[in-house]
Amino acid sequence: MNAIGVDVGGTKIAAAVVTPEGEVLNEVRYPSSGPKERLLSSMARSVNEVRDGFEVGGICLAVPGTVSTVENKIIDAPNLHAIEGIPLKDELEERTGLTTTVENDANAAAWGGFRFGAGSEVSHLIFITLGTGVGGGVISHGVLLRGAQGAGGEMGHITIQATGPRCGCGNHGCLEALASGTAIARRAREVASEEPDSALGQLAVERAVLGEDVAGLARQGDEAAISVLRETGVWLGIGLAGFVNVFNPEVIAVGGGAARAGDLILDAARHEVRLRAMSPGRDLVEIKEATLGADSGVLGAAALARNSSSGEYVLGA
Amino acid sequence: MNAIGVDVGGTKIAAAVVTPEGEVLNEVRYPSSGPKERLLSSMARSVNEVRDGFEVGGICLAVPGTVSTVENKIIDAPNLHAIEGIPLKDELEERTGLTTTVENDANAAAWGGFRFGAGSEVSHLIFITLGTGVGGGVISHGVLLRGAQGAGGEMGHITIQATGPRCGCGNHGCLEALASGTAIARRAREVASEEPDSALGQLAVERAVLGEDVAGLARQGDEAAISVLRETGVWLGIGLAGFVNVFNPEVIAVGGGAARAGDLILDAARHEVRLRAMSPGRDLVEIKEATLGADSGVLGAAALARNSSSGEYVLGA
Repeated sequence: MNAIGVDVGGTKIAAAVVTPEGEVLNEVRYPSSGPKERLLSSMARSVNEVRDGFEVGGICLAVPGTVSTVENKIIDAPNLHAIEGIPLKDELEERTGLTTTVENDANAAAWGGFRFGAGSEVSHLIFITLGTGVGGGVISHGVLLRGAQGAGGEMGHITIQATGPRCGCGNHGCLEALASGTAIARRAREVASEEPDSALGQLAVERAVLGEDVAGLARQGDEAAISVLRETGVWLGIGLAGFVNVFNPEVIAVGGGAARAGDLILDAARHEVRLRAMSPGRDLVEIKEATLGADSGVLGAAALARNSSSGEYVLGA
Repeated sequence: MNAIGVDVGGTKIAAAVVTPEGEVLNEVRYPSSGPKERLLSSMARSVNEVRDGFEVGGICLAVPGTVSTVENKIIDAPNLHAIEGIPLKDELEERTGLTTTVENDANAAAWGGFRFGAGSEVSHLIFITLGTGVGGGVISHGVLLRGAQGAGGEMGHITIQATGPRCGCGNHGCLEALASGTAIARRAREVASEEPDSALGQLAVERAVLGEDVAGLARQGDEAAISVLRETGVWLGIGLAGFVNVFNPEVIAVGGGAARAGDLILDAARHEVRLRAMSPGRDLVEIKEATLGADSGVLGAAALARNSSSGEYVLGA
């Protein structure tokens, strides 16, 4: 049967009816702005509108925050504070009459990649998103590792340099603090001031350099921009090497905005994994770009929708 | 039915018949010295001797090395090179007629703790051994995370200080390089030379200080020794905080020789986890000493023995 995936982002809500093969049959979008009550109405309306005329077995909301499956609410959502503390499952079930599951968006993206994307051929997949922050999720032995409270899979918050820069989570030297889009922009500003004659340095005189500027300049051959992405890739690889030793995965798929820099970051990460991870895991693992496109959020969410009676995934596991 | 657990260590082979309740019915020990053929004979003899008069459903060998379940051999065993490359499963099955499973010793200890020890009440357990090195294993959602090749669970080989000291694995700044018994001894030598008047400093004049000396002096109140263990606990906590964020476990059980220092190390680790890990995982996790005693090796091994036909654990899961 089909399922509805709802991708609740910091700026928009996207809802889609998805088939067991990962095909999107219908999709609607609403803004995610406004206070709690307006947000809940937009979510419910998006579901009730998109389901019209389709048979569906359940909904999953993928949300940008720490989900407590035990307390059935969002603990912490730095980019969408309005949903913090809301019992989303109960609210959506009441407003739509459909069985509702709530999951962290990065865990949903990991499961989506496992069902339909870069990990669809394997049983051991790590999914990493490089965006404003670093998120992710792990499928090991075919099981999505949510942890005891559903708060697991915070792959960006392992310490890789204990004396490193402060992270948004309060810790120092997290993978996120060293390899996120935010870290790229910070490093770009530093390199721009060290190398004012580079294209990166010249852009920095005109305006604030963004993470996405760096990839563009690097592709045009600017050595300063290339060095920023290479250093980011080294830090990413230091984190990934640890994951290789702990999880022995077949695939590490890297997605998110900053991953659009592709091999400019990933080649340095692959090199660092070969240097730092142990055999045989380092020889097995394939580090590649995530393959699900613009629909990855709703696909990942739909893949985690569950039946009320059996508790099984509507789209299969 | 009962199973036989075989704990293959660097100096001895211990084999025991274990009941589904974790009771040891019979046990034998042999030295593990000698070349490949003598080692194989000792393993087979220990099994055939210990099983005499008991009904058993299978054997598991817990070995101190990286096990490739795919290639069915030991990839790397730094403390027992003689077993490297041997197809142990086939050799033992031929010599004993019993279905044989081969597992990494730290993964076996983790599963033993999950079935019979500090994790027997939970579904999400991380087991860490602090010995000469740092080993471990993870049970998440009730599943032992071996990874794609059986090489997972190398918890000591995550980077926590990328610019840190070189590790035995070739990497720099691994948890093992900063929190193992070896790291304790190295740190003790440094502190002894900085504080020659301390009890630790005075011992260092007489002879080489060992890891176990430090715990003894710390218990007698020597501040220099206490500071060595506290710093070790801080590094341990930095690693554990990352595991809390990634796995959201209910219990982290710490065993192995260096763990005998108990709260002298663990209190500092707990404090660091509270500082560095995220809510709600940091509030849930209980960090405690592993509870299985001298038989932990054979218990952990027996708990991983499998039936030939069903592939299920002989002692249950």
